[in-house]
Amino acid sequence: MTYCVGILLDVGMVLASDSRTNAGVDQVSSFRKMRTFERPGDRVVVIMSSGNLSVTQNAINLLEQNARRMDGTLTLWNAQSMFEVSQLLGDCLREVKRRDGPYLMQNNVDASASFILAGQIQGEEMRLFLVYAEGNFIEATGETPFFQIGETKYGKPIIDRVIKPGTTLMDAAKCVLVSFDSTMRSNVSVGLPIDILVYEKDSLRISLQRRILESDPYFNMIHTQWGEGLRRVFAQLPNPQWDD
Amino acid sequence: MTYCVGILLDVGMVLASDSRTNAGVDQVSSFRKMRTFERPGDRVVVIMSSGNLSVTQNAINLLEQNARRMDGTLTLWNAQSMFEVSQLLGDCLREVKRRDGPYLMQNNVDASASFILAGQIQGEEMRLFLVYAEGNFIEATGETPFFQIGETKYGKPIIDRVIKPGTTLMDAAKCVLVSFDSTMRSNVSVGLPIDILVYEKDSLRISLQRRILESDPYFNMIHTQWGEGLRRVFAQLPNPQWDD
Repeated sequence: MTYCVGILLDVGMVLASDSRTNAGVDQVSSFRKMRTFERPGDRVVVIMSSGNLSVTQNAINLLEQNARRMDGTLTLWNAQSMFEVSQLLGDCLREVKRRDGPYLMQNNVDASASFILAGQIQGEEMRLFLVYAEGNFIEATGETPFFQIGETKYGKPIIDRVIKPGTTLMDAAKCVLVSFDSTMRSNVSVGLPIDILVYEKDSLRISLQRRILESDPYFNMIHTQWGEGLRRVFAQLPNPQWDD
Repeated sequence: MTYCVGILLDVGMVLASDSRTNAGVDQVSSFRKMRTFERPGDRVVVIMSSGNLSVTQNAINLLEQNARRMDGTLTLWNAQSMFEVSQLLGDCLREVKRRDGPYLMQNNVDASASFILAGQIQGEEMRLFLVYAEGNFIEATGETPFFQIGETKYGKPIIDRVIKPGTTLMDAAKCVLVSFDSTMRSNVSVGLPIDILVYEKDSLRISLQRRILESDPYFNMIHTQWGEGLRRVFAQLPNPQWDD
């Protein structure tokens, strides 16, 4: 399984992905699910992926290979908008599924895949997209300033409660780590390391990119204090007084 | 959708179900999903259901109708064990699916259904079962003293953190309501009223049965204080100090 989150704030974006991949419980491995494309001062494009690993990797590799073209074709390096980049990614996903889908289907292998695409291109605002398994996509707006893919449910309540467009970058980063902690506690197929990336609005460069390993003291502190805090709040709630 | 929880403690059981049913978003209604069978001093049997409403209702109605038989057939009123009652319920589910399944399948209607079955019969310990859509079932043990059916994920973390076999009945009832609050906050297809039932070990009668409506002051207090408490714990966590 997978868990990825992308949050679009007034002041920037926070993106995070886990790195556990499994083909059955006896084949668990670690793959980075966040891919960054950066030309400082011009554009930052970040893609996080969930689903069949060969499909997601191939789609992104195809996007990257097409981007080497110098013949004037539209690529992620010359696109004028994140909307165009979303279309390119959707096209690559469709091409991979056209090629591999029928063979996967023959063996009942799930070929589904989805992406969170985030970034900013000079001349545009920051934008955050969710690209579906069919290659179509939606864009985040102020009412729903985040997207999740993969194992989304365990980690959603804290994001629902905390994240507003006006949230600070560090509060959002903290919230994302609490969200990952809840997810990993309830689903063993989501696991460390976590890749976390912070982008400051209009900087057109990656502000911070960090890989959170098992030994990370901040993440371990979050894990312990959050668990203790929840149990404390629970203990302080009065018991029901039902007299019937 | 649905959310039901059954918890088996050393001192008794706590069971709860929501009551929202929907066939599409334009057809939402309220149905009780908890059915009780009680002969004080002899047995208490409680069934909670999730899935296709006609399938779950018909299976339980069939179980209840069969139980009126006086010809010595095995019924829920003369069964010697909750294990036998689980088999009877599984058989009824299979019979309904045999009858209606092919017609539902013709229109791609999902005929799946599952049950939490809990109770105690004189001469036996309390027992808690989960009956699957196929009519087979499993029983709760000390390591996993609870079952959930329906929309299980949002409400699972608090149960994972709080419930142990040694938890008190009122702590478990409080935990169940927090679990429902989290679920209803994130999934609008789970809704009030909540039916909650408390059974004290070896009492062989229902100790407490209560319907929690929107106006319930205790539930509203839980809702408010839990949300405030979570935000307070979150605010008290230090922000990351990442210097790169």
